[in-house]
Amino acid sequence: VDVIASSLRVAEQVSGERLDAALRHLAGFGARSDGGVARLALGAEHVAARRWLIGEASALGADARMDAAGNLFLTLPGSDPTLAPVVTGSHVDSQPTGGRYDGALGVLSGLEVLRAVREAGVQPRRALTLVDWSNEEGVRFAPGTMGSAVYCGVRGLDETRAVRDPDGIDYGSAVDACRDALGDLLGAPYPLGAPLHAFIELHIEQGPVLEAAGAAIGVVNGIQGVRWFEIGVHGRSSHAGTTPRAARRDAVEAACALAVALRAETIDEADVTRFTIGRFLVSPGAVNTIAEEVRFTVDLRHPDAGTLAAIGARLERLCARTWAGCTVRLTELSASAPAVFPAAMTALLDQAAGELGMHAPRLVSGAFHDALHVARHCDTGMVFVRSNEGLSHHPAEFTALDDAVAGTRLLAAGLTRLCLR
Amino acid sequence: VDVIASSLRVAEQVSGERLDAALRHLAGFGARSDGGVARLALGAEHVAARRWLIGEASALGADARMDAAGNLFLTLPGSDPTLAPVVTGSHVDSQPTGGRYDGALGVLSGLEVLRAVREAGVQPRRALTLVDWSNEEGVRFAPGTMGSAVYCGVRGLDETRAVRDPDGIDYGSAVDACRDALGDLLGAPYPLGAPLHAFIELHIEQGPVLEAAGAAIGVVNGIQGVRWFEIGVHGRSSHAGTTPRAARRDAVEAACALAVALRAETIDEADVTRFTIGRFLVSPGAVNTIAEEVRFTVDLRHPDAGTLAAIGARLERLCARTWAGCTVRLTELSASAPAVFPAAMTALLDQAAGELGMHAPRLVSGAFHDALHVARHCDTGMVFVRSNEGLSHHPAEFTALDDAVAGTRLLAAGLTRLCLR
Repeated sequence: VDVIASSLRVAEQVSGERLDAALRHLAGFGARSDGGVARLALGAEHVAARRWLIGEASALGADARMDAAGNLFLTLPGSDPTLAPVVTGSHVDSQPTGGRYDGALGVLSGLEVLRAVREAGVQPRRALTLVDWSNEEGVRFAPGTMGSAVYCGVRGLDETRAVRDPDGIDYGSAVDACRDALGDLLGAPYPLGAPLHAFIELHIEQGPVLEAAGAAIGVVNGIQGVRWFEIGVHGRSSHAGTTPRAARRDAVEAACALAVALRAETIDEADVTRFTIGRFLVSPGAVNTIAEEVRFTVDLRHPDAGTLAAIGARLERLCARTWAGCTVRLTELSASAPAVFPAAMTALLDQAAGELGMHAPRLVSGAFHDALHVARHCDTGMVFVRSNEGLSHHPAEFTALDDAVAGTRLLAAGLTRLCLR
Repeated sequence: VDVIASSLRVAEQVSGERLDAALRHLAGFGARSDGGVARLALGAEHVAARRWLIGEASALGADARMDAAGNLFLTLPGSDPTLAPVVTGSHVDSQPTGGRYDGALGVLSGLEVLRAVREAGVQPRRALTLVDWSNEEGVRFAPGTMGSAVYCGVRGLDETRAVRDPDGIDYGSAVDACRDALGDLLGAPYPLGAPLHAFIELHIEQGPVLEAAGAAIGVVNGIQGVRWFEIGVHGRSSHAGTTPRAARRDAVEAACALAVALRAETIDEADVTRFTIGRFLVSPGAVNTIAEEVRFTVDLRHPDAGTLAAIGARLERLCARTWAGCTVRLTELSASAPAVFPAAMTALLDQAAGELGMHAPRLVSGAFHDALHVARHCDTGMVFVRSNEGLSHHPAEFTALDDAVAGTRLLAAGLTRLCLR
């Protein structure tokens, strides 16, 4: 078999018309009047969407299975059943005021690849599996990327099944209810943590990089590491009219100066570091009272673990100083190490893009994805598709069909190569 | 009559023991278990305190009258009834978690001057009037300094009578209820806006200036002008992980940089300007979302009207710029012009302090007082008494008795001179 020729043949079979129809159909499950979708994890709309998805995949000869964490696997068998499958997919759940593309495009592009493989008459050596990872958004059950985290051993199953939604329904019951609802459509339970040969996730970028670069698609190097800090600035409350500057310990004055200084430490010419102060709470918060306390957050991201640690250390040193007479206390709220996708996977996608004549710049994912966890379990790569104005988690989120088709072709070429080798 | 000798004789008669007893007694009306007081304007505790005050003043030969704005006047007649009275006093109402000195010391030091005048056997030429201005704190009825504002024509009576407290009781009814409760103790209504010869208010400083200067008392030059601004900073909300620095319009970044720049414009070597950002609201306020909007307030004070205007103009110019890609909109919420007390009044107090051998530095009031309005009506001066740690509006607010006595002696000397001339 000429692997490359076969992969290009599959890519050629990708149909924009079919992909567009699938996107429109899926958007009907949990459709909002504003054009967005509200399809919370394992809710009725999500289960209905899965029922439709299983029907579409079954028509291609795929079998459907669920694991104990609620992930759905739709598998086109390979010619060698002893080999671990090649996997693609993303998530079908959405934000409550979500759009049509976040997660959905990754699942539907995978479905389109299954169709294209069949249309091209290519018989994969390894099974090709389309996955709908459960509860990626973390809206109904917190936190997000729950299904992939359990599958990959990052979270325990029992603690995860016990997580409750705002109505008091636990995650385990929601998974069981979904399994019961899908009933005969499902085969034997998919074993949690079973080996995967490789995983490629296609996702909208949710950022402005590809748009700025004039590129429809990109190959993702990895996922940034994230550190969240809370910085507490403690001053002394006093009267705005009667307290001279020399006698003040103004927490707002200190926090603003510190915020400017912290930001200055994170400015890199390549514009890779992400530094955000998103929350800034002042107490007591009266116009004519000097603030006693400010608590603000820092969201710090960088794709390189060493750089992330070094910037963090510089921020800590700045916080160890006294600012405008106020003391500062830095607390790390959470930390997630960067994921760097294996060079073999990014090279495979680069090469396929080249052979397809596509311009696919490399970029780093600023947002979390299921691929973050899957990368700890098997060789993983990601394809990003351009987002209109970087918008996501919003009914107006939009990706042009041509861009989606380009990404799906690259996905098809990459997956086919992996399936045939 | 030797005016100066008489005034020093009255000052000598000021009794710390009596003043202390009066402070303790008044603190019993609305006493809090934490040692503070809660004596809201025209409430039962305030009315009871007025009943006691009228009794004390009547015993000295003073008559009691109320005006239509709820102010209480206790007048020791002068030998020439055709002359306008010399007035002192402050306010008996307190904050809900108030202390024993704010307002109360000004009224009780005035009462002690009435006693000292009698003890010294000095017969004033002009009547000497002790006033309890109504609703200075503005807690039960907003805004504060209500009674003095109406007396001096700064506010209308009808609109003021219509102001309601949180229970729906209007100010007019509260004034009427107080008059009814005091009944026979009161003489004919005091005419609103009747001429006053001069007014001296003694008040705790509510700031750290005298304490830092090692002075028990000070002579007040005037009351700072105040301008309140709200500054709205408008950026664009986006994802903290996916948005490069170059593509951001981060309202927190802009607001912090602007806040630092605004403050820098207000720094004067003499430490006279007061600049406070007390409220700073970020929207949407999520850790991983770049802020769309920040709204923060500026409380700007200066005793010189021209300087206050010039600093305001500099702040406006800074706000006209773009900050971190964000637009800025400055709105003036309120403005109050500075009051400068007549040189004749400050000189009178300086001279009396010198003759009493007291160190009484000049200072400016950072807080509002009834004297702000009265200064528009007649010659006005203020004596400040040192506040422990600048604390006020707090049960722990404290002024040492020796300091209170020093202030009362200066007040006695000043009032006596005014009454005899």
